[in-house]
This record gives sequence, C-alpha cells and structure tokens, in this order.
Amino acid sequence: MKYGIVIYPQKEIQDWANSLRKRYDSHYTLIPPHITIKEAFEIENINEAIQYIENITSQIPPFTLKLSKVGTFLPISPVVYVGFEKNPVIYELQEKLNADILKRPLKHQFIPHMTIAQDLHEQEIHDVYGRLKLENLNKSILVDRIHLCYQIENQSWTVYQTFLLTGK
Amino acid sequence: MKYGIVIYPQKEIQDWANSLRKRYDSHYTLIPPHITIKEAFEIENINEAIQYIENITSQIPPFTLKLSKVGTFLPISPVVYVGFEKNPVIYELQEKLNADILKRPLKHQFIPHMTIAQDLHEQEIHDVYGRLKLENLNKSILVDRIHLCYQIENQSWTVYQTFLLTGK
Repeated sequence: MKYGIVIYPQKEIQDWANSLRKRYDSHYTLIPPHITIKEAFEIENINEAIQYIENITSQIPPFTLKLSKVGTFLPISPVVYVGFEKNPVIYELQEKLNADILKRPLKHQFIPHMTIAQDLHEQEIHDVYGRLKLENLNKSILVDRIHLCYQIENQSWTVYQTFLLTGK
Repeated sequence: MKYGIVIYPQKEIQDWANSLRKRYDSHYTLIPPHITIKEAFEIENINEAIQYIENITSQIPPFTLKLSKVGTFLPISPVVYVGFEKNPVIYELQEKLNADILKRPLKHQFIPHMTIAQDLHEQEIHDVYGRLKLENLNKSILVDRIHLCYQIENQSWTVYQTFLLTGK
C-alpha cells in the first residue's frame, strides 16, 4: 500500500487552485490541491510510522508559506506549479519526515510547490505558464497540520490521519 | 463553509466499493467511498466543534460494521447502498455528534450506509440493485477513527482533521 504525506492549503487557496487545475491538471479529481511533503512510500508497520510522525510534528510549530512565483519543471517534467518564499521550517519538516524508518531515496530534490498543471504537451505547458504569471499571488498558506494519506485502486488518495504541528 | 463527518473504510473495502461506484455513482470522483456519520453542516467556530468532537471520540471505543445487505432509498431517493448489521455504537456516535453545539435538524432518519449508486434513472437503480445482490458481502469494516471534512468549490471534500476512537 502506498502512503504519502501532504499539506492541504485552506479552502480559499484550494478553490483558487482548483479554478485553474480544472482545466490544466489531469489529477484534478484524484486529490484536492496540495503540497507534497513526502512522496509515495511503502512501509510495513504503519503504526510505527505514525508514532514516528507524531514525534516530529510535536517539535515543529505552525508556519506560513507565502506564494511567490509560478514555476515549471520543464524539461524534466511537464508541470506548472506555484512556489513559495523560502521558509526553513518546511525543509526541516521534510528532512525529518525522510529520516530513520521513513528514509527513502528522493526521486527529485525537494522543491515545495503546489501543482497547477500537468500531463499537457510542452507547448500547452508554456501557454499555461504564461497565463499563470498574470495571476495574483499575494496569498499565504498557514500550515498547522499535515495529512498522512494512502492511495486507493483508482489512484485517488484517502486521508488516514492528521497530525497537528504543536511545536513551540 | 460546509463541514461533514465521515468514516472511511479500509482500502480493501474502498477498492471493492469503487469498482462498483465507478460505473454507478456520480460522486465517484468527489469523495472516496465512505459512511456519512454527520451530514453537511455549518458552524461558526470550528475549533469549538473540534473540542466537542474530541470529547465524544474519547468516549467511544473502536467498533466493527459487518456488511449485511444491499438496500435502496427508492422511492425517496435514487440511491443503492450497502447496509450493515445493527451495531449500537454507531448510533451512539451519530447521536452524540448531533447534540449540543452540533445539533442540526436531520434531513433523513439515520441509516448507516455506504452509497454505491446514485443519480441514475429509476430503472437503472433497479438494475444495479439486482446486480449488487449477487456481490459477496462477507466483509467487515473496523472503525477506529472518524474524519471531519470540508467541502471545496468543486463539491469535493478535503479532510480537515482525524479523530481516533479512544474510548474503552
């Protein structure tokens, strides 16, 4: 079974992202707008993982991600995303969630982002990129919790457990 | 903002339900297979609601729902669902989640169920009902948590918080 860990932005940001994803993101119906903090991974003992994650989230305080720019992963991957102003806390969280029993090889360097478009032809990706640069990005995400999800047969994700960030 | 409270069955049950919902349920992509324990409701102070729910789930122990039969809400509603053997705990949970600050008028009497088909013509509903009666229902759902969700603009639901059932 595949697990993953994500941040769901608050509803206003999700609604804004979905108004764009609807047209551009093939995963639009499979998962709400999100920031992946840990890519799909497998683990035998999920309860052990949960204890481990709880220990981490008790050390990390709530933090803010300020939207900063539109980016693309071209030529590696046909994706347009929204990125954030650097905030060391999300890197600390990501590193701690990829250590010890949760350590897995990373497919890509960790770049915190919210995907807006994917699985389009390269020319379309360029068009969407240009289009998105006109969007107002004066928005912030308050991150006070993360969600451990699992993938079901139709490739969509169900939340298994929420972890509140309770560090000081 | 609309909130709701649901039970997500474990992956095996979700995969089985989705293999059917895919063809028959218009909400297939909007929410994973689930049992609604509290219908959509609004509340001003969500943190107050969370404290209230935590207090309830600390009193309710994990319980099992054994699948028992295929039912339909015709003629009131064109829905085919899977029902469960009576278990008083889910009724207790539902009642407690509809009291005090969470008390709201019920649209329908509470019948614990997992929807498999909806928004079809009446004749199709009858066909699906006949077809589902041939399914093997020798399955159980272990309920050890509930999920508070909110609805986003595209009518899909995002999980806000998980509550483990920790009663003895």
